[in-house]
Amino acid sequence: MPIDPIIATYLIETPNSVEQVAETIAGEQSSGTFLAVPGETEELKSRARAQVLSIERLDAVGQPSLRGVKIKDVPTGELPVFQRATVTIAFPFDNIGCNLPTLAATVCGNLFELSDHSGCKLLDLELPREFAKRYPGPQFGVEGTRRLVGVSERPIVGTIIKPSVGLSPAQTAELVKELGEAGIDFVKDDELMADPPHSPLERRVELVMREVNRLADATGRKIMVAFNISDEVDAMRRHHDTVLQAGGTCVMVSLNHVGLAGVSALRSECQLPIHGHRNGWGMFTRHPLLGIEYAAYQKLWRAVGVDHMHVNGLQNKFWEADDSVVASIAALREPMWGGYQAMPVISSGQWGGQAPETLRRIQTQDVLYVAGGGIMAHPSGPAAGLRAIQQAWQAAVLEIPLDVYAEEHPELRQTLDKFGKTR
Amino acid sequence: MPIDPIIATYLIETPNSVEQVAETIAGEQSSGTFLAVPGETEELKSRARAQVLSIERLDAVGQPSLRGVKIKDVPTGELPVFQRATVTIAFPFDNIGCNLPTLAATVCGNLFELSDHSGCKLLDLELPREFAKRYPGPQFGVEGTRRLVGVSERPIVGTIIKPSVGLSPAQTAELVKELGEAGIDFVKDDELMADPPHSPLERRVELVMREVNRLADATGRKIMVAFNISDEVDAMRRHHDTVLQAGGTCVMVSLNHVGLAGVSALRSECQLPIHGHRNGWGMFTRHPLLGIEYAAYQKLWRAVGVDHMHVNGLQNKFWEADDSVVASIAALREPMWGGYQAMPVISSGQWGGQAPETLRRIQTQDVLYVAGGGIMAHPSGPAAGLRAIQQAWQAAVLEIPLDVYAEEHPELRQTLDKFGKTR
Repeated sequence: MPIDPIIATYLIETPNSVEQVAETIAGEQSSGTFLAVPGETEELKSRARAQVLSIERLDAVGQPSLRGVKIKDVPTGELPVFQRATVTIAFPFDNIGCNLPTLAATVCGNLFELSDHSGCKLLDLELPREFAKRYPGPQFGVEGTRRLVGVSERPIVGTIIKPSVGLSPAQTAELVKELGEAGIDFVKDDELMADPPHSPLERRVELVMREVNRLADATGRKIMVAFNISDEVDAMRRHHDTVLQAGGTCVMVSLNHVGLAGVSALRSECQLPIHGHRNGWGMFTRHPLLGIEYAAYQKLWRAVGVDHMHVNGLQNKFWEADDSVVASIAALREPMWGGYQAMPVISSGQWGGQAPETLRRIQTQDVLYVAGGGIMAHPSGPAAGLRAIQQAWQAAVLEIPLDVYAEEHPELRQTLDKFGKTR
Repeated sequence: MPIDPIIATYLIETPNSVEQVAETIAGEQSSGTFLAVPGETEELKSRARAQVLSIERLDAVGQPSLRGVKIKDVPTGELPVFQRATVTIAFPFDNIGCNLPTLAATVCGNLFELSDHSGCKLLDLELPREFAKRYPGPQFGVEGTRRLVGVSERPIVGTIIKPSVGLSPAQTAELVKELGEAGIDFVKDDELMADPPHSPLERRVELVMREVNRLADATGRKIMVAFNISDEVDAMRRHHDTVLQAGGTCVMVSLNHVGLAGVSALRSECQLPIHGHRNGWGMFTRHPLLGIEYAAYQKLWRAVGVDHMHVNGLQNKFWEADDSVVASIAALREPMWGGYQAMPVISSGQWGGQAPETLRRIQTQDVLYVAGGGIMAHPSGPAAGLRAIQQAWQAAVLEIPLDVYAEEHPELRQTLDKFGKTR
C-alpha cells in the first residue's frame, strides 16, 4: 500500500497569482526548478511532483508584509493588491523517507526565499504514521512525568533557578533545598545555564542531587530537576548519564540550538524525560507572515521524542497573545499517530493569578506550571510563593474567585497584593 | 588572564527607551529576570551581568515593524515613535563556556520575544578565541577544496542534480557522467535529495562514484560530488563512511535542520569537506527587524567546521538583494581566530551572466559557482552550458564585455541569447 503523503499547510501573501505561487512552492520543493530541465519527464512528475490540494483565499492588503517580492502582471496604472491565502500541498513520502531534517528542508526550506510572494508561513503539518517506525516519540509524556514526580491530578508546579547564571553549584543546591522543603514538584535550570566554568554541570548535579535525594528519603517524593545539558552530542550523552547516575529524573535541552539531529541523538540513548526549551522561537513566529506556527513545529519535536514542550503562558511577559498560547497547548494535546503525548510547559511571568483563565481556556491540569519570580519574589519567601500558586489552582478548579479564596489563604492574598496590581 | 567576553550587536526598534530595552536584553540574557530576586547580589551581577557597551541611534518610524510591543511612557495625545538603534552587548564568557548551542541560547534565545521592542535582529557576533580550543573549524576550506578538485585559480564551477528529486541512482549517475565528460568540477545533490526510498544514498553513492572514479582514472581529475547526507547523527556518520570508502570527496548537510550539535557530531568524525546548505535561512533574515544576519550566523558554522557555506548569488532568483549577498561573502572571507576559512558557495539562478558583476564586487575567484538550470537548460546541452559559464568568468577576469567575448565563444553567445533576455 502506498504511504500517505506529507501534507503541509501554508499561509501566503502575494501580489501575483495565488495559484501560480502555490504551484511554484510545490514545484521548487519537489521535482521542479526555475527552468524546465530535460530529466523532468511526465513519469517522474507524476511520481515526484508535490500537489497543490487546496487554496483558500483570505483577505487582501495594500502593502507587502515582507520585502523582496517581485510584482508581475499588474496592469499599468493600477496598484498591486497583496492577496492572502492558505495553501495546502501534498509532498510524496517517497521524495523524503523517514528523515526529519530532510522533511524540514522540504516543508520549511528555500520556500521562504521565493520572490513571488511577500509572505509565507508554515501553519501545519501532517506526517504519515510511517515516521513512527523510525522516530520513537516521547518516552514519558504526561503520564510518565506524573509518575516520576508523584503528582497525579493537579498541575505539576515548578520553578526556574534564578539568577539564571552566576550561582555556584553549592548556591544552586542550597536554593533547590529551600524550594524542595517548601514542597516544589519541579525545578529547572535556566536555558542560559548549561555547563559553564562557574557552574560545571557535573558538580552542580552532584550537589543538587544530594539535596534532592536527601529530601526524597525524608518525604518519599522526589523533586524533578531538569538539568540543562544543551551541548554537543557526546557531552549531552555524558551529562545525561551523570544525571541518571545521580538519581536525577529529567534533562533539558534548547531545542532550536541543539537542533533536530542532536536532540534525536540524545533521545536514542536517553532514559529520562527530555524537557524541551524553545528559546529562539520568537524568530520563527513573531512575524505573522514568516516562519512556522507552533502547530507544525511541535510535531517535529514530538516525533523526535521530547517529553515536555514549552508553550509560554497566558498573560505572559513576552509579546505573545493568549489565543496563540491556548492554540499551542491544544496542538500539543492532540494525539499524533495514536499517542506521542508531550506535556505542555507553561511559563513566563506566571504567578498564579493566571490559573483561573488558564484552566478555563485549556480545560486540563495536565501541565507543568513554571513560575520563576512569581515564586522566588513572594513577600514571605519561596515557600509562601509556591503555596500561593497551589492555592490559585485550587481556587480555579473550585471556580471560586481568587479574591474570595484569598480571604482564607494568606499566601494567595499576598501574591494578589504584590503581583495582581502590576498586571 | 580573563577570557574576552562574547560581543553581540543587535538592531532594535522600540517605542520605549532605547537604553532601557538594551538593559533589558542584557539583563534577561544574563543574570536578571523580570523581578528582582534575592540571589542577584552585587557580587554576582559584577561577574555575570551582561554589559551594554554602546548604543547608536538610527532613524525612527511611525509604525512598529513587529507585533506585540507594549508601549509605555508615551504622554497622552502623542503618537508613539519607534526608534531604531544598534546596541552592542558584552556577555561574560564565564556565563557560557565553549558551548555553541548555549551561546546561541544566550545571544539569540528569548530576546526576540520581549515585548519592550518591536524589532530585534542579531547583526554580528564576536567570539573569543577560547572557542577554538573546542571547535576545530573547517578541515579543508578554500585551499583544501581547491586541492581536492584540482582547480587552482578560477572559480570551481558546479551544478546541482535536477530534477531535485525523482531520479533513480542510475539516472543520477548517468547525469553525473554526462556532466563529468563535459568537464564539470563539482556536482551537488539538491537539499531535497538525501536518502529517500527511490534513491537510497548507498546505492546512489555506489553508482555515481563508479562514474566519477572512471572519469578520474581517465583524466587525472576527480569531480567533487557533494552527497546530501542530512539525517540523524548515526546515519550521517554511516553515510559519510560510505562516501569516503567509495572515493568520494564531499558531504553535504542542511545546516538549519540538522542543527548545530548534529553538524558538530558529524564534524568530529569527518574526513571530507562539509558542504553547508542554508535552506530555511529566509526565515532568519527576510524581515529586516527580526532574526539573524549572515555575518553572525556564518561564524557559528565556521566554528563548528563547515567548509562550504551557501551565500545565494548576485541577481538571484530569490528575494535577496545583491548588496546583502556581497556582504555575506565579505563576512565569510574575513579571517576568524587567524583562519577558519570557509568557501562561499554562489548559487540560485546563476547562468554566467552574473560573473562580471560578481567578480567586480567580491574581488576574488575563491568561490564555488553553482548553476543548475543555467548549465542543464543550455540550448546545446550541459557541456555547452558549462563552457559558457567558464567563458563568462574568463571574460570577467579579462574585463571584456560578455557580448564582445561572445563573438568568438558561441556557447556564451547562446547563453546570452537564452538567459540574458529573461533577466
